[in-house]
This record gives sequence, C-alpha cells and structure tokens, in this order.
Amino acid sequence: MRNILLTIEYDGTNFCGWQRQPDKRSVQGEIEKALSIVCGAPVSINGTSRTDAGVHALGQRANFRGEFGIPTDRIGIAVNNILAGGLNSIGSVGDVQIVKVEEKKEDFHARFDAKGKKYVYKILNSQEKDIFGRNYYYQINKPLDVEAMKDAAKYIIGTHDFKCFQAAGGEEKATTVRTIFDLKIFNQLADNRKQEIELQIKGDGFLYNMVRIITGTLVDVGLGKRTPLSVKAAIDSKDRQKSGHTAPPQGLYLYEVYYDLEELNKF
Amino acid sequence: MRNILLTIEYDGTNFCGWQRQPDKRSVQGEIEKALSIVCGAPVSINGTSRTDAGVHALGQRANFRGEFGIPTDRIGIAVNNILAGGLNSIGSVGDVQIVKVEEKKEDFHARFDAKGKKYVYKILNSQEKDIFGRNYYYQINKPLDVEAMKDAAKYIIGTHDFKCFQAAGGEEKATTVRTIFDLKIFNQLADNRKQEIELQIKGDGFLYNMVRIITGTLVDVGLGKRTPLSVKAAIDSKDRQKSGHTAPPQGLYLYEVYYDLEELNKF
Repeated sequence: MRNILLTIEYDGTNFCGWQRQPDKRSVQGEIEKALSIVCGAPVSINGTSRTDAGVHALGQRANFRGEFGIPTDRIGIAVNNILAGGLNSIGSVGDVQIVKVEEKKEDFHARFDAKGKKYVYKILNSQEKDIFGRNYYYQINKPLDVEAMKDAAKYIIGTHDFKCFQAAGGEEKATTVRTIFDLKIFNQLADNRKQEIELQIKGDGFLYNMVRIITGTLVDVGLGKRTPLSVKAAIDSKDRQKSGHTAPPQGLYLYEVYYDLEELNKF
Repeated sequence: MRNILLTIEYDGTNFCGWQRQPDKRSVQGEIEKALSIVCGAPVSINGTSRTDAGVHALGQRANFRGEFGIPTDRIGIAVNNILAGGLNSIGSVGDVQIVKVEEKKEDFHARFDAKGKKYVYKILNSQEKDIFGRNYYYQINKPLDVEAMKDAAKYIIGTHDFKCFQAAGGEEKATTVRTIFDLKIFNQLADNRKQEIELQIKGDGFLYNMVRIITGTLVDVGLGKRTPLSVKAAIDSKDRQKSGHTAPPQGLYLYEVYYDLEELNKF
C-alpha cells in the first residue's frame, strides 16, 4: 500500500473551505476528484487543517493511501493539469495547486503526525480601501499602534490554556492547553497612509478560530480599545468574553505544517 | 444641468468588461444601477475606455448629466455603500468603487475630452505558478530578457501608424496613427527565481487591444523569439501578422486618464 503526502496551495476565496461538503466547492473535494481521475479509483485524502471558507493556504498537507501505478513525481503534474482546467478539467479556475508530492511510510498520517503549524495573518492598515486586497487582507482604516500589538503578543507566547481564544462550534478538544512557540509581528510602510502588517504565529496546535481571535484581540489593542496587559488577563480568565473580536477569514494563511520537532524549533 | 465626472477603480476579474450588456455583470451596469438609486432617476454614464473582461482599472473615468439634489461630495459615499453591499445592495462584492467625484462644465465628456491615457501591464516572471496572482499578472515561467524588451520598447515611443498592434473586432477608427509619449519597463527581483515586470505606457490614444499586443510582442522579444529590431519592422509593415501575440487581459490596468496636456507631458 502506497502512502502519499501532498503539499497544497490554495486561494480560499471561491471555496466553501477545506472540508468536502455535498454540492459545494471545497478544496478537499476538488483535489479528491482530480486524484481519483489520476489514480483511476476513488481517492479520499486526510487534510492536516480544516480551513474555513475564505482562508488561504501555502502549505496545507494531506495524505492518501492506495495501490496505483502512477509514479510519485507525476502525480502533482497530472493533478495540477486537471485543477488548472486542462485535460479532464473539472471546471476549476486555477486557484488550487499541488506544490510537492512525497512518498511516506504506510502508517504516516498528515494530521495526527503533525508536530505543529505556522499561520500568517495579513492586515492592510490604510485609510483607503484597496479593492484588490479585499480577499487577501483584513483592511483596517484607523491607524494601528503596532508597538502596542507587539507588547501584547508577548503574553501569548508560551504554554497556556487558550480557552479564551476558542470559538464555539469547533470539534470538542480534550484540552485547551497549547504551546505558542513564537508570535512575530512585522510591519512595512508602503507609504505614509498605508502599512502592511503581518502576524506570524507558530504553535503545536490551534483551537477553533484561535488565530483569528488572537488577531482580532491584537487589533483591538492596536486601535487602543484595550491595553496589552488586558490580553494576559483574558488568557488567565479562560473566558471567550474577555478576548477580542474574530478577525475575518480573508487575512489568514496556513503557511506551514511541521512533522519534525527540529524544524518546529527554528523560526 | 449638472455634469459629474467620476474616477473609478475596479478589479475586472468578475466583470464581463466595462460596457453594459444584458444579463451580464458589467462595471458600467453596476455603477449605473447604484447611481440610479442615489440620484432617484435612471442614470447613464459615458466611460472613457471600454475595458475588456478581466482588465482592471485604477483610474477609469466616466461622466453623467442630470438634475438631482444630492451634493457632489455625497455621491461617491452613497454609491460605494451600495457597491460594497450596504443599504440597497445590488449584490456586488466590493470589487468596484468610486474614488473621486468632480463637478464639470455641461459640455465636458469623459471620453471625447480625454487627451491621453496611461496603462500599466504587470508580468510575473517566475518558474513557479503563483495562484494568488492568477487574476492580476501575466505569468511567464521561462526567463525573460528585460534588457532586450527595453531595447525593443524604444521603437514604439513616438508618433507612428500602429496598425500592426490593432486587433480585429474593435470599433472602426479614422486613423491608426497614435502618439506614444513614453513606454517604461521596470523590473524588480523578488528573489532569484521570481521577478515582477511592469510596463507603463502613456499615449494620446490606443487602438483595440493595442497595449496587450505591444506587451505580447515585447514578451516574445524577452523570450528570444524575435529581435528588438523586428519590432520596428512590424510597425513599418502595418501588418498585424508581423507583431506578436496578444497578452492576456488579467495583467492590464487602466491607470490614468488625462484631460490636461501638461499632465500628459509629465511622466
């Protein structure tokens, strides 16, 4: 039995999310349809992260097992050809592609074997709305105090019970304790009235909507609606009511999945 | 009778183009629907440039005349609210907005009074396909010789009969002589395997698909399929068969429209 690990990139704008749903266009569904053509038999894939509608990925992972003849290095090319609207097109528009294909041991699982993940969240802080960025950034038109956001971010790094950053509606988790290895905030002034702010967050696991609630809370700090120290108080309270708003899905990118503890410790 | 000039920005991805068409989503149609709500009477606008499906604009212009009560400085806000999906939403997704509103003399016409236009064409030269750029760049995966493209561009600047760069299917023009004031090519290495190339072209007028055929011809030069000097030969021939391929619409941006000769002469 072969076991194939895919690395997948997608623009989440026109998907209902990662997870297969009847009569909706999901990332999982599109890839499974293309893979089933390529492998000549129905294929079902295990994704690492069930990203929501509108959320993007540069390094989503998924594995699948089966007996099929196609060489590993041909799988990506064949699937991408279908996904991009080539031969046997399933009507897609080129917003998802396989970027890497690897052969793994039979017991490897893309989700259960993940040691950690890195997400990126992109904010556009600009007085003027950028219509080209509407699907790729969280646009905020009031000035953000990035230094205050960086101060607040320090309280999030480390091992904590992050219940205050968990949205209702996700899968029940055995524990809400997670380790955030690092949370970096970069900002770049495009011009006087416009700056791009990028949050990079790396952890051993994330609760439902955790990155979006962390981002919303840090944005509230940046807007002066709450202090950096109040973020520590929110974590200590374990109360969702004490943290901030949920940032929209468009700014969120699943950046990388780590299967190796060493890689996880390099940031 | 009031005469209002709009400056309009749009992402052309989800439009059938500028021009109103029955049962299709056009930029003109969406703006007219929103304006008709705001002005309380049917409004019809004169656009400067009939951009094709997929073509973007940062500085499209359009004027309309009428008797209506709303103050000039409220028109943009009210129309944008509708276009962004606010009150009286027409189901749009925020991919078009008014960025400026001016009151003009009654005989002013956005199209006939234009002295010139500037277009930008964006190329992404990268071995790896960028799915996020699929609607905003012409992606070319073989290395482009930008210096050769710059050499070729010199033959295009000036007053010439540009019949070789005119596609069939456009409106019949009295003459195919146009003046290109400047054609600049900028390139920026993102990393070793990726560069963004931007063409900026300013002229007193453009034939149907002229910027896209010029770009396609320069790309052919960049790929080594033809020499810079062959571009001069193509212009002299006045033969569409002698110029290059038509670059796709996604990379094209209507950047600015000039109503003032002085502005036109500054590049």
